[in-house]
Amino acid sequence: MSTKPKLHYPNGRGRMESVRWVLAAAGVEFDEEFLETKEQLQKLQDGNHLLFQQVPMVEIDGMKLVQTRSILHYIADKHHLFGKDLKERTLIDMYVEGTLDLLELLIMHPFLKPDDQQKEVVNMAQKAIIRYFPVFEKVLREHGQRFLVGNQLSLADIILLQTILALEEKIPNVLSAFPHLQEFTVKISNIPTIKKFLEPGSKRKPPPDDIYVRTVYNIFMP
Amino acid sequence: MSTKPKLHYPNGRGRMESVRWVLAAAGVEFDEEFLETKEQLQKLQDGNHLLFQQVPMVEIDGMKLVQTRSILHYIADKHHLFGKDLKERTLIDMYVEGTLDLLELLIMHPFLKPDDQQKEVVNMAQKAIIRYFPVFEKVLREHGQRFLVGNQLSLADIILLQTILALEEKIPNVLSAFPHLQEFTVKISNIPTIKKFLEPGSKRKPPPDDIYVRTVYNIFMP
Repeated sequence: MSTKPKLHYPNGRGRMESVRWVLAAAGVEFDEEFLETKEQLQKLQDGNHLLFQQVPMVEIDGMKLVQTRSILHYIADKHHLFGKDLKERTLIDMYVEGTLDLLELLIMHPFLKPDDQQKEVVNMAQKAIIRYFPVFEKVLREHGQRFLVGNQLSLADIILLQTILALEEKIPNVLSAFPHLQEFTVKISNIPTIKKFLEPGSKRKPPPDDIYVRTVYNIFMP
Repeated sequence: MSTKPKLHYPNGRGRMESVRWVLAAAGVEFDEEFLETKEQLQKLQDGNHLLFQQVPMVEIDGMKLVQTRSILHYIADKHHLFGKDLKERTLIDMYVEGTLDLLELLIMHPFLKPDDQQKEVVNMAQKAIIRYFPVFEKVLREHGQRFLVGNQLSLADIILLQTILALEEKIPNVLSAFPHLQEFTVKISNIPTIKKFLEPGSKRKPPPDDIYVRTVYNIFMP
């Protein structure tokens, strides 16, 4: 009997990609059941498999977890990616929440009207460069350690790396003013579990394309 | 020297109201510094008091916490409102995340165009009645306990009660098909700390009015 977590989501990044990142970073193998049709979603809903009728949903340890943040928190807790005490946990939580606000812009980007997409890239670049990256650059510069919190890998490092790499796909020089974040990106990318996830053939998903966007519309639009 | 938490936010509900609820439910007295002008916000930003340049911000235990969820999580952890183990914690987290998705609609509602506000009330009612309330009704019916998780008060109960009461202000009969949620609402409202918060003169904020909306625009719009 397999005890691997099973992820239920379309075959693309969306809100599930962070979950894939954190499982991969923790060295956890997982299976995926890709939603491709409205009927598959309906079947999950009708079978009461989705607490709030929505995906992402992850079958793990006998539970059917939903809500992106709750899934991330559970995996982070289980795999010691949430700091050594409440103070570290709270720092990690704040860093993750800020980064998720930025990542949310990337998640929604392919669903904007074509005219709005280019404007939104400018907005994302500004948010990243003015609001979010200076915070993490300063943290890394001041404590001089490899990781954001407590000198060990946490959920905050993983979500930040995911967000940086996704942003660099759209804005290649987005880290140019942030030397410590550049170094962070190289070092975290070289952690063996993460390095493996970044190599071809892993369960990391490619940037959203038209097929992904059409699939999402087909499944979720009334 | 006062060790009360100090809340920085405009004088209205918005994203801070959940924090007020949880502190009140935990029996924690707090002070508030109301933002009224763009200059006040600028001053907080310039002084590096806001990690991501945004409020809500709460000064507590020597930290300046930001991001609504992170603030709620910290207070819930500190005051034993997050379950007795990881399984209970994860249930509470999922219930809170679902409820916050519903509450978010209420938070944004006063900022919609007048024409869209009535349509959005219909949408909120549908979301509440079809997606969220059936989940909590079933949980309460099946375990027959007073609280959502682990037979004791948690963050999930507090945020759900806040959301139900705010929704009832707009849709008075929203609980009519949910007898267990009606009973839940009465019982949780009668917990002494919460009962006190629901009485006149507490730090609970009134429903958003035009003055609140104008203040928010004045402070946050470029």
